[in-house]
Amino acid sequence: MNVYDKLKELQIELPPHPPLGGIYKPVKQVGSLLFVSGQGPTKDGKPVIAGKVGGERTIEEGQEAARLCVLNCLSVLHHFLGDLNKVKSVVKLLGFVESAPGFNRQPEVINGGSQLLCDIFGEDRGKGARSALGTNELPGDITVEIEFIFEV
Amino acid sequence: MNVYDKLKELQIELPPHPPLGGIYKPVKQVGSLLFVSGQGPTKDGKPVIAGKVGGERTIEEGQEAARLCVLNCLSVLHHFLGDLNKVKSVVKLLGFVESAPGFNRQPEVINGGSQLLCDIFGEDRGKGARSALGTNELPGDITVEIEFIFEV
Amino acid sequence: MNVYDKLKELQIELPPHPPLGGIYKPVKQVGSLLFVSGQGPTKDGKPVIAGKVGGERTIEEGQEAARLCVLNCLSVLHHFLGDLNKVKSVVKLLGFVESAPGFNRQPEVINGGSQLLCDIFGEDRGKGARSALGTNELPGDITVEIEFIFEV
Repeated sequence: MNVYDKLKELQIELPPHPPLGGIYKPVKQVGSLLFVSGQGPTKDGKPVIAGKVGGERTIEEGQEAARLCVLNCLSVLHHFLGDLNKVKSVVKLLGFVESAPGFNRQPEVINGGSQLLCDIFGEDRGKGARSALGTNELPGDITVEIEFIFEV
Repeated sequence: MNVYDKLKELQIELPPHPPLGGIYKPVKQVGSLLFVSGQGPTKDGKPVIAGKVGGERTIEEGQEAARLCVLNCLSVLHHFLGDLNKVKSVVKLLGFVESAPGFNRQPEVINGGSQLLCDIFGEDRGKGARSALGTNELPGDITVEIEFIFEV
Repeated sequence: MNVYDKLKELQIELPPHPPLGGIYKPVKQVGSLLFVSGQGPTKDGKPVIAGKVGGERTIEEGQEAARLCVLNCLSVLHHFLGDLNKVKSVVKLLGFVESAPGFNRQPEVINGGSQLLCDIFGEDRGKGARSALGTNELPGDITVEIEFIFEV
């Protein structure tokens, strides 16, 4: 199925390309691998979901943050590739959850983004390897940061 | 030397394939690279070594946790490849140690897993690039999480 | 431009190859990808910039730490490749900043290393994908740790 039709069906509008937050490229391609820089739950470069899960933020808010990371990633990929249908598969997600002391359910949080990738690309193509981890602090106090590798 | 003979010589029995802890694939292959999802010191998906090194856990317990991460990784690879002898080399380990404040000996902890890979695959084939880092919290309060890249 | 001429122009002398801090290879090559193990702001394996940014360390000191990570990385690459001119491009940086509670400007810290790579290799070749994250503890209490992927 066409990815853009699927996005329409899911009533998802891709956000504008997030501004760069430092000295890096949003995407770097080597052969068939696309390395996408770490994405956060930001809009126009400003955090929209900030604070630690298990503290100021619930798991559900963390999952929404992970969804926003994926949407920013797809915006970046759309601009890089010109056509999201060129994505052959998700290769790997490395997801960090800003975690209050004693919060240990990071995989459930990152699932928010992983599920969205499956919804858009389908179970096989949308699922890759993954690590989900906690950290004490993230840039701009964002709740989640995810970096991605895709295959084209 | 045959990897399974080596495992027998080292009196190592591969654990059963760990259950999935979220929405991801245990292994994703692209060309000759195998990306293995983050593994923990778990049995049947339950943590067997939990708590922070430098706090509730000693360095030796952390090293044992790193060994268990590697064993789960090998179980996953065995199921994916059908034959561990197909592994050409270890490419990279990214290892996180759940660290109490002031604990700064993460490389010694991750060495527990790195040494096991060398024992099984030999010095050259079993050694790849590596980063060892601390973090405040990991899923299920596990003591160590390691993600892997292999070459086939 | 020749990389060594550029280093001379920038009055940069490559440090000696850092000693191994554990059981791993400094660089692992698979095809055209070079995976470089996590580097710190060390000299002869001893931390030269230690402590958390937002605590004992300023952003400027963190940026200098990131520069030292890059210099150690280039030393490692120089020894591996024999000639840094073989580097085709920077593919990805994964940078961790040892962060005091409430410090959330990790990208500015990692920029210290990213800028140096651009200065040496030029804007296009020296810039890859990147993630910048915080963590509570790093090996030897180093202020920054960066792992790298390069293309040859």
